[in-house]
Amino acid sequence: MNIELICSGSELLTGKLNTHASFIGDKLNDLGVNLSLITTVADRKNEFAQVLGDAVKRSAVIIVTGGLGPTFDDITVETVSEILNVKTYKDENVAKAIVQYFEKRGIDCPAANNERQAQILEGAKVLENRFGTAPGQMLHFVYNESENKKVRKTIFLLPGPPKEMCPMFEENVLPFMRSYQIKMKKTLVLHICGMAESLVDEKIKPTIDYLSANDDVEFAILAHQFLIDVKVSVSGENELTIDDTIKNINQEFVNVLGDNIYGYDEDTLEGVIQKMLIETKKTVSVAESCTGGLLSAKLTNTPGSSAVFKQSVVTYSNEAKIQMLGVKAETLEQFGAVSEETASEMLTGILNLSKADYAVSITGIAGPDGATKDKPVGLVYIGVSYKGNNEVNKFKFLGTRSDIRARAVNVALDSLRRMILKTKNVRVKK
Amino acid sequence: MNIELICSGSELLTGKLNTHASFIGDKLNDLGVNLSLITTVADRKNEFAQVLGDAVKRSAVIIVTGGLGPTFDDITVETVSEILNVKTYKDENVAKAIVQYFEKRGIDCPAANNERQAQILEGAKVLENRFGTAPGQMLHFVYNESENKKVRKTIFLLPGPPKEMCPMFEENVLPFMRSYQIKMKKTLVLHICGMAESLVDEKIKPTIDYLSANDDVEFAILAHQFLIDVKVSVSGENELTIDDTIKNINQEFVNVLGDNIYGYDEDTLEGVIQKMLIETKKTVSVAESCTGGLLSAKLTNTPGSSAVFKQSVVTYSNEAKIQMLGVKAETLEQFGAVSEETASEMLTGILNLSKADYAVSITGIAGPDGATKDKPVGLVYIGVSYKGNNEVNKFKFLGTRSDIRARAVNVALDSLRRMILKTKNVRVKK
Repeated sequence: MNIELICSGSELLTGKLNTHASFIGDKLNDLGVNLSLITTVADRKNEFAQVLGDAVKRSAVIIVTGGLGPTFDDITVETVSEILNVKTYKDENVAKAIVQYFEKRGIDCPAANNERQAQILEGAKVLENRFGTAPGQMLHFVYNESENKKVRKTIFLLPGPPKEMCPMFEENVLPFMRSYQIKMKKTLVLHICGMAESLVDEKIKPTIDYLSANDDVEFAILAHQFLIDVKVSVSGENELTIDDTIKNINQEFVNVLGDNIYGYDEDTLEGVIQKMLIETKKTVSVAESCTGGLLSAKLTNTPGSSAVFKQSVVTYSNEAKIQMLGVKAETLEQFGAVSEETASEMLTGILNLSKADYAVSITGIAGPDGATKDKPVGLVYIGVSYKGNNEVNKFKFLGTRSDIRARAVNVALDSLRRMILKTKNVRVKK
Repeated sequence: MNIELICSGSELLTGKLNTHASFIGDKLNDLGVNLSLITTVADRKNEFAQVLGDAVKRSAVIIVTGGLGPTFDDITVETVSEILNVKTYKDENVAKAIVQYFEKRGIDCPAANNERQAQILEGAKVLENRFGTAPGQMLHFVYNESENKKVRKTIFLLPGPPKEMCPMFEENVLPFMRSYQIKMKKTLVLHICGMAESLVDEKIKPTIDYLSANDDVEFAILAHQFLIDVKVSVSGENELTIDDTIKNINQEFVNVLGDNIYGYDEDTLEGVIQKMLIETKKTVSVAESCTGGLLSAKLTNTPGSSAVFKQSVVTYSNEAKIQMLGVKAETLEQFGAVSEETASEMLTGILNLSKADYAVSITGIAGPDGATKDKPVGLVYIGVSYKGNNEVNKFKFLGTRSDIRARAVNVALDSLRRMILKTKNVRVKK
């Protein structure tokens, strides 16, 4: 059975990364029903019609993303209508929902939205768009493979914006595709921080080599801004055997990676920290400089963060460091704003101000300007404190301004996590 | 003339991001010779042969990435050989180069590498791989379009690893493609904020409709978290004519969109604001609540931000709003933390603290928890002040917690931009 993805959008032919292809490919792979083909085509009718015509011939399931919006280049519904020879109609419920979507925002619904986006293929199931106006559609249709052979096929039309497409795919396409799953498949993702990718690879290699003859077990390793994910996929006919295999592999990895594993599957570093702080009824505050608010933004990313996060300051200038955090003018003069001493006084200052249990400070040079002879771009001091016991470490990050800021934030979060582990012995368990 | 890209690699169908597609799409687009199609296919012979056969029929130039390695699933050369009916031979120079590549690293060359990777299509030009062992190939071939019509076509075979593919593409494919650049091409991207996508579409539609008969002019519209991009591409033989057309289209758009256009091409909202503040020698400070530091992070995103941004506070709790910003306890009690009054007192507080010229404040409910009967998730007050003249507006954003935070930040940036325009009459000019 062929499952094929068509991504419509001229921007995908001129340099935009196709994140839909990787999202959908990954989700289907988790089910064990892989995509057989991905085609990216411009949102011009002739070309899209050609691709769609070929897809209808060769594949049992066709997933189309993009081209459902209200503008002139949104041609998906009318092209599918022509290729499959299925009429469209204006669905009054969909039209109403679109009007309501705009009403909620206090805007009059533009006529084009209502007319164009409410066009539904006859016989299609409307897929609710909880995050936008263009509904999706699922249509079963009959394809005449030869004079005597009729085949039932299915096409999904999904909106282009990832925020709208991803939940719609998970809520509608995945449940449908589950019926195509031959073997059961489960995955476990381990999240690791505080080790180089090559060291993680070296540590887990014996386990991977031992299992490499087993076709039912797959491994993948992925690193991004100092966070490393190891994905374990196990297939089989028996759920208990699969669970057992995953459990054993995880145990092997815990033995060699220990506390460097900060979480599993949907866990985030900031989410794990929040959970540990809530469990121990502690709070955290932040004083940051070169990261400009990114660390605070991460620590308030997870719903419920107000229980552990009260306040933070972004002290970009020396003046602000002195005035808001009580960093000494002499310290700044003698050691500079980017120094162990300043990072430490920032910790003391934010703890005095906030009365939080934990504090984190960051001061560094994100670049591309601001380097001096002794202090290169990428030099960052990261401090973490529990009740006034300050620890400051020096780092030298490579990459662009935005790499350096992202890496500093991840290392700062991991430093906080390790300080909480050390001071309270709270661990993430699986 | 059709140029088509085939990416061979099963990993691209199971979740790996296709960075080749965006790299090649972007580089060709800069030349004005766009890809017409991208197909991603597994490295299995039948499927790859099917895709390749279709491509040979419809396209004048075919670029294939991947499948040139030494292992069993590296099937590109043998499949191309079969589909085009062109023999292969072992190229002794290539074989020697591969052996030398391994020798340099002190490794014996595995026999498979030598045999498989040295197979070259008869008549093909060998493309040197400076960063790996598999050479690329360029082959011109004749395709019989009909009995009387023979067409000359070209196929490029490039290796899969990005560090090998990218330089080989730039050194060999780009110079070749330049000969296909019949027309010159230029693009202009307009960045817009403060209008719904459909309203932007409505405003620019007359211009687009007027020019729709002209094949040399293309438009694309793209919206993300309340920021809207309109991309105008103009091709032609004469650079002056192209520049003129772009200038006229831009003028039409400026007439209908006015100050809603915040920038062009590489401009970002925060970058434009930074430029205006530097030009007028003003500074800005921020007091944020539900956005948790995201607004500050944006305002420090652009190199050189320390000239305009001194400090900010994230006052997540009521206590912090009182203590750090001097928001009155009675205000919080009477109107609540999410209110026009609190947003306004936050402005006054951060201006007093920072002595900045402009201030921005955000207070709202990012959700999913925290809503009350009168105050739903997504309710956000955004304040902006110039020297104590406070303006606060109320918004109701839909979407996830992260949508609401991202939209609040973009609207806050735009409010600041409009306040700067109003108070200083500084405009971004093109």
